[in-house]
Amino acid sequence: MPDPAPKRDPVGPADAESRVLARGLLALTHAALAWTDPETGTPGISRIAFGLGVTGVPMTLISSLTPHFAALKAHPPCAILLGEPGPKGDPLTHPRLMIRAEAMFLERPSDGYGIARAHWLAGHPKSTLYIDFADFALVELVVQSALLNGGFGKAFRLTAADLVTEAPRPVPQS
Amino acid sequence: MPDPAPKRDPVGPADAESRVLARGLLALTHAALAWTDPETGTPGISRIAFGLGVTGVPMTLISSLTPHFAALKAHPPCAILLGEPGPKGDPLTHPRLMIRAEAMFLERPSDGYGIARAHWLAGHPKSTLYIDFADFALVELVVQSALLNGGFGKAFRLTAADLVTEAPRPVPQS
Repeated sequence: MPDPAPKRDPVGPADAESRVLARGLLALTHAALAWTDPETGTPGISRIAFGLGVTGVPMTLISSLTPHFAALKAHPPCAILLGEPGPKGDPLTHPRLMIRAEAMFLERPSDGYGIARAHWLAGHPKSTLYIDFADFALVELVVQSALLNGGFGKAFRLTAADLVTEAPRPVPQS
Repeated sequence: MPDPAPKRDPVGPADAESRVLARGLLALTHAALAWTDPETGTPGISRIAFGLGVTGVPMTLISSLTPHFAALKAHPPCAILLGEPGPKGDPLTHPRLMIRAEAMFLERPSDGYGIARAHWLAGHPKSTLYIDFADFALVELVVQSALLNGGFGKAFRLTAADLVTEAPRPVPQS
């Protein structure tokens, strides 16, 4: 059996290129979310709508009919996977970003909710149809740490600061 | 604020159409995997290579350099998300399959490993380059239950039996 390469830490610190790549992945409008099942303590996974709030914090809009709604209420720690390989090439060579986060449900009504709602709708206009239903919630996914994988042997550790795309943006006018 | 539709169980039992849709998603060659971090007990998420074994059991090939390798060794319960929305339309209306599974690392050498290895390579020929490295493992992801979401209001519970695509297949000749 061939011997693998000598053991080394396969993950390096963030650099300018990895920050740019990560910020590009943060522009996606959907993601996979890993959560903990409150009944069994085992992992669950869901596709979620994804966007960034006014200050660049990752966000989602979820319905209480989904299994991850109750899960995030009970266990706020979660993880997000961004990036989609598409139909061509080895899927493991396409870049993806894994984020460890803490879910924070936004109370409504509140000033913060109104600002987040306007910002979300600017990026996700179709959700106008259901964002105000009583069983939907806007949830901030507050970044704890992140790992960018740019393909075999190209992995980087990123902090919350590495993922901030820009200065706080103005609230969209509606 | 508009009122949501009356509360009801949003998930129905599997039917012929949902089984066909689920089996189509099982033909994908990559997936997202949710696992439990052995150090913190919180969720982690990774992209994995995905395939089916000889008996239709979901499988992956993973390196010990990935964070999910040690996680699955310590906590076999995990969850798999299959399906990729692509660039068009609302990502939440595209079908996806969520599977709750138990990871089982295949011992090698063993008869079972040889059969699984040949079957994996038939579906993932590029992994010939690294499947025999000492730090790679073939892992069965034994289905506990599954949830198919075919878009808003179209969710189905599926069993392991619902996901079996066919009778055991012959081992590919190499």
